[in-house]
Amino acid sequence: MSNYAFIGKSMPRVDSRAKVTGEALFTADLRLPKMLTGKILRSPYPHARILNIDISEALRVPGVKAIVTGRDVIQRKWGVFGYTQDQQFLPADRVRFIGEEVAAVAAVDEDSAQRAIDCIRVDYEILEAVFDAMESLAPTAPLLHDNFPHNINVHVPINVGDVEKGFAESYYVREDTFTASEDSYFQGEPYAVVARFDTDNNLEIWMPNAGPHMKAKPLSNALGIPLNKIRVRKITIGGAFGGRSEIAPADLICALLARKIGRPVKIVYTREENSIATRQGHALITTIKTGVRQDGRVIARDVTCYMDGGAYSSTGPIAVSVPFLCMEQAYKMEHVRYNGYRIYTNKPPRGMIRIHGRAFACGVDTQLDMIGEHLGIDPVTMRLVNAREPGEFTNTKSHVASCAMKETITKAAEKSGWNDKWGKLPPLRGIGIGCNSVQTGFPMGIRGGSQAIIKLNEDGGATVISGVVDNGQGNDNMLVQIAAEELGIRTEDVQLVTADTEVTPSDPGAYSQVSTFIGGHAVKNAAENVRRQLFEIAAKTLNVKVDDLKARDRMIYVKDSPDTGIPLKKVVRMILAQGKSVSGQGDYWPKVDPKREWVKNPFGQMCGAFSFGTTVAEVEVDPETGKVTVLEVTAAQDVGFALNPLVLEGQFQGSIAMGGQGGILTEGHVWDGGSVLNPTQLEYKVPLACDMPKINTIIIESNDPEGPYGTKESGMSIAMSAAQAYAAAVSNAIGVYMTDFPLTPDKILEALQNKVESETPNQNEDVMEKALELIVPAV
Amino acid sequence: MSNYAFIGKSMPRVDSRAKVTGEALFTADLRLPKMLTGKILRSPYPHARILNIDISEALRVPGVKAIVTGRDVIQRKWGVFGYTQDQQFLPADRVRFIGEEVAAVAAVDEDSAQRAIDCIRVDYEILEAVFDAMESLAPTAPLLHDNFPHNINVHVPINVGDVEKGFAESYYVREDTFTASEDSYFQGEPYAVVARFDTDNNLEIWMPNAGPHMKAKPLSNALGIPLNKIRVRKITIGGAFGGRSEIAPADLICALLARKIGRPVKIVYTREENSIATRQGHALITTIKTGVRQDGRVIARDVTCYMDGGAYSSTGPIAVSVPFLCMEQAYKMEHVRYNGYRIYTNKPPRGMIRIHGRAFACGVDTQLDMIGEHLGIDPVTMRLVNAREPGEFTNTKSHVASCAMKETITKAAEKSGWNDKWGKLPPLRGIGIGCNSVQTGFPMGIRGGSQAIIKLNEDGGATVISGVVDNGQGNDNMLVQIAAEELGIRTEDVQLVTADTEVTPSDPGAYSQVSTFIGGHAVKNAAENVRRQLFEIAAKTLNVKVDDLKARDRMIYVKDSPDTGIPLKKVVRMILAQGKSVSGQGDYWPKVDPKREWVKNPFGQMCGAFSFGTTVAEVEVDPETGKVTVLEVTAAQDVGFALNPLVLEGQFQGSIAMGGQGGILTEGHVWDGGSVLNPTQLEYKVPLACDMPKINTIIIESNDPEGPYGTKESGMSIAMSAAQAYAAAVSNAIGVYMTDFPLTPDKILEALQNKVESETPNQNEDVMEKALELIVPAV
Repeated sequence: MSNYAFIGKSMPRVDSRAKVTGEALFTADLRLPKMLTGKILRSPYPHARILNIDISEALRVPGVKAIVTGRDVIQRKWGVFGYTQDQQFLPADRVRFIGEEVAAVAAVDEDSAQRAIDCIRVDYEILEAVFDAMESLAPTAPLLHDNFPHNINVHVPINVGDVEKGFAESYYVREDTFTASEDSYFQGEPYAVVARFDTDNNLEIWMPNAGPHMKAKPLSNALGIPLNKIRVRKITIGGAFGGRSEIAPADLICALLARKIGRPVKIVYTREENSIATRQGHALITTIKTGVRQDGRVIARDVTCYMDGGAYSSTGPIAVSVPFLCMEQAYKMEHVRYNGYRIYTNKPPRGMIRIHGRAFACGVDTQLDMIGEHLGIDPVTMRLVNAREPGEFTNTKSHVASCAMKETITKAAEKSGWNDKWGKLPPLRGIGIGCNSVQTGFPMGIRGGSQAIIKLNEDGGATVISGVVDNGQGNDNMLVQIAAEELGIRTEDVQLVTADTEVTPSDPGAYSQVSTFIGGHAVKNAAENVRRQLFEIAAKTLNVKVDDLKARDRMIYVKDSPDTGIPLKKVVRMILAQGKSVSGQGDYWPKVDPKREWVKNPFGQMCGAFSFGTTVAEVEVDPETGKVTVLEVTAAQDVGFALNPLVLEGQFQGSIAMGGQGGILTEGHVWDGGSVLNPTQLEYKVPLACDMPKINTIIIESNDPEGPYGTKESGMSIAMSAAQAYAAAVSNAIGVYMTDFPLTPDKILEALQNKVESETPNQNEDVMEKALELIVPAV
Repeated sequence: MSNYAFIGKSMPRVDSRAKVTGEALFTADLRLPKMLTGKILRSPYPHARILNIDISEALRVPGVKAIVTGRDVIQRKWGVFGYTQDQQFLPADRVRFIGEEVAAVAAVDEDSAQRAIDCIRVDYEILEAVFDAMESLAPTAPLLHDNFPHNINVHVPINVGDVEKGFAESYYVREDTFTASEDSYFQGEPYAVVARFDTDNNLEIWMPNAGPHMKAKPLSNALGIPLNKIRVRKITIGGAFGGRSEIAPADLICALLARKIGRPVKIVYTREENSIATRQGHALITTIKTGVRQDGRVIARDVTCYMDGGAYSSTGPIAVSVPFLCMEQAYKMEHVRYNGYRIYTNKPPRGMIRIHGRAFACGVDTQLDMIGEHLGIDPVTMRLVNAREPGEFTNTKSHVASCAMKETITKAAEKSGWNDKWGKLPPLRGIGIGCNSVQTGFPMGIRGGSQAIIKLNEDGGATVISGVVDNGQGNDNMLVQIAAEELGIRTEDVQLVTADTEVTPSDPGAYSQVSTFIGGHAVKNAAENVRRQLFEIAAKTLNVKVDDLKARDRMIYVKDSPDTGIPLKKVVRMILAQGKSVSGQGDYWPKVDPKREWVKNPFGQMCGAFSFGTTVAEVEVDPETGKVTVLEVTAAQDVGFALNPLVLEGQFQGSIAMGGQGGILTEGHVWDGGSVLNPTQLEYKVPLACDMPKINTIIIESNDPEGPYGTKESGMSIAMSAAQAYAAAVSNAIGVYMTDFPLTPDKILEALQNKVESETPNQNEDVMEKALELIVPAV
């Protein structure tokens, strides 16, 4: 057992009470004096030239206070890298997707704003549009951006070893293609933003975000005002899941309206707007060619991937390599080649999402099952043979210090009763396994590290000042746990000041699981710094060495004789009496290769640590409706160390809901040209609590040497492996390897019908009648 | 000329725009969702036992949400020192002055709250009351507090040398008694407080204050919750002047109401409440016996002082020694004895105020003029003979490092044309001079120092985090000036985060001119810390030594070759690229004797520096109305160094308005028993801008070795010397030494009449007719 007071202990989160009482304010809840309502006019065309915008009639609508158009913005484009800066918010010349921002109104109420929006006259010259990534590559396709030939936004080429040689040496080689449609985050909170300028041109702005400092910098660029005049303020946030990591057009628009009229403005997106005007997940087509030894070990893999990026870059270029990297972290290969392309189409822009590249991840594992079937090797063994091991390097040269990939496989298999079920389940029942790995905290250049400041009050309480944002995952509680542990005080003694760009030092944000690893680490370092100051005085007072001391429960005492101690508060007052404040800073920056890049040079140490997850899912398919019932899911993750098992359990559950239950069974966008047909919760079908199966969670601790307390990412490698396991289980249940995701009932029914037809000599027999007899699990 | 970019330059204040546009929010302007209005029921009796409080009817008033009484408070008394803790806010047993808080109501609007207040039934047993300090000392007087015999709150005894011996050795000895009534701050903003509790029992509270951290600690005690759960938040403040340095009963009451109902509550005082229920200045009776050599040099002084403290201690015990200390700083004495008594009476409690002890200060200088007249020495020479000089120690053992007392006297005399006017003015015209000295930053134990944190943004802008509050004097601008100067950036590059107990480190507050000396010093140290980090990288890059570098106008360059430089922003980014945030802390704690105390041991180094001020006033008296017209005022102060001459000029003007124009000519409370008869601006007569005379300001720089840039206090020693100069000028004009302050027209007319009567042999002649002929200036 650990000797920690709070670390590693299950505890309810510090933000629970405010959330369950409804006291917590989300952006849409904010009410500021004299606040106006903002509304955005969006393009009805997927591709068009803006010839003229006439706002004269709209300005006469009673209650309208300000209107902004492309004339109100400075000409600076946004994109996550300099060479992908392609999006001019509020474009004056051209729109590239249905829903792109054309103008915006601030008015005294929503009705007036909408009336004015309806009165804005825009003359468009309609241009030819393209909605399919493969069509967009064609020489005849309309070009979305002049400086991006063939509509290729980015191309990530990776080539390690010699894949052709590898295939030649392989016992068995096969190539398959997998596809998936676009997916959405469907955060609980639709996008909203409130902005206010003061007379000194200082901006205060509130919005859901995955890191306030990630919002401030592009806002500074887009508005042309310095960072010290932009204050992204703390607010309760209803989820991010990889979204909300960058400026949204609405942020700039809201600020422009607020500045123009000199009053606060609030914009709240409808669900439809949230789906079309905040970036979401990519559609993907991937061809995977894999060569293996007779024992199933992969020798070579060649992957080509086309991602439909929509009209602009956003954070999409990062997403091009992530699915590949997750795969190469989880599974060994000798030779590997990857060509990832992100293609522009006239659809809303896509970016990073928590389940990166469903088609890719599920494709790799589905193909492993295909190969296993061919070799007569069961899926668990196939994965154990290929599983990453600690101390190894990935193909792209990242050292994997801690890794319990194999343990997640064996434990998940054991808990799920794999051996009793594989090949032994009744018809239309299936079991599947998936493995994945996720980066813990990748760096974003000079914004890649975090600093925390801790100050102690004279009564021994502490304030932690940190840029870490909590957007639902429990980061606030994590910071409190760490600070209380290191300072030897109680969690209720800790006050947080977080996620406010003016007050808190820069922090990279809550994307890709950096919060504990980087921001939490910084708090740990700051607390150790403060504790050292306390111990130095306490050691003198108690006449012992600093190393002999321990802080716990508001006391500083000698390790081996807990009766010899001094109240922490007393030590604080002793320092104050000497004429010094009791406070300290702590920095943490991940040890990564500074030359590594996402597109141009994806080689070198990419992040501080890697997490590894295995999920096993057991399903039953209704052959009449195609509906999948999930019977049981077992998820095992190497999280490094479990800071708060209760929170981890929630992460596991949410990951399975998003990655498996939603990501494989229901979630995916359908289109009519550039129009998304299922933008709302009613049609998009995010799983609800009542849809969720029984879940077994297995926490495995590999104690990462770099992670604070040995901890690293949790959740995301379950989300991805859950997708893979769900896909495998459905394929197993119906005896067909499914290759197009999500696996909605229509696709399952079609696969069943095709299978029955191909296996039934007499085509006249009733297909459904036969199904139960003929379908056996694929073994 | 200095080589500073901003320091020493006149510049408009950073808070000006928000104030002139009305954008700046004062506490009374705050509007929070669901906020209630609070009202306080006050005692109608000066001394009474509370037998019963019946709130049942009040609770039934529509719109009433919460009522608190003495039953809702924990039993902890407040007072600035442990041994003076005598005030239980919302007493359950006994009230001691008219206006004391008995109960409070929170309701949906003011009318409902007032209706409920009117419905609260309190049964009192009326007790004997005492309203005069001297009567209160009598053995037969009712005792206000059981543990304070003779109603003596504190007695400060100081005895240095041998005054009896000194008097025996003196050429001339005289004793006089001086008196003054109570005075008020009359800040532009009446007291107001807004409090909100969240469901986690965290308190947010806004109120005018002279230091948010000074509010937080007693609130923590009174509420029984730790400091990390109390957030005193930044708000625009309309003046303090020595007030607002401690918890007010309304702070606790507002918090109690907010906690009871779970909604924000706002209490805004009426002017009447502000005068009776926030502590104000003491009434004072002082007897001064002074022995001098033939050349006017003071050998011995024996002072006894009785201050009417009202019903409770508040900060009053500090105020008992301050007038004496100001005097002993300004003027040398060989032997001195002081006995200061603060006496309880059944009047509202009094405390520290910017013009400490009018009767004392004016008494000392008036007596110097009396002595000078006897010796044939003019007032300027009398003061030069006795003026403090640098390098000396005060009688109570404070070292005076920098001192230009004599220069202030000679320069003020010269500028005012003293030599051409003294003894040469027409009848009813008078000229007077006064000198004083004020402490710069005295310590408050473990809360005596300040820490600042500065963080740089990646674009080279800075955020300064400091506990320093700006309550009107320009502290915000001071912090910006210092940070911009030290970092070599522009003032618009600096963002302030100040005066918020949760975010900013502890700071002693803005009383007694500590802000620049302590808080500004801490910002200077923090900026130097950050600059050092920048210079280390810049020095390597430019291949020079750190000491060769200079930062100015967003550049870091080599001192002797300004063309060799590097943009500061670039250096920041270089540090970030190395994986480190650019930030730093700075502490400053004044170098004072930790054993020194205000009451029990007022010996030892009391503060970091002393300022010295001389004012000369020239007046004309209308013998028919007694009205004084001030013709010209010349104020010279040794401020150490002028950080911002424009702000200093404002300080001088405000000080003359408060100390001289108001403090001597109009301001003073009149009483009917325990009822103050002039609680509002209409009757109390604070001078307006149109009342002000021509003012000459003379800034003298002695460059204090400890003050940041050599700076120390400004303003307060003008406020006090202005009082002395005004008093002396009026006495000079009417030829009568006035001893009871303020010098209102009725007193002047009476003095004139007495003088005419005593000097006119024929009592039947028309007094007023004769006045003009007979009255000559006293020389």
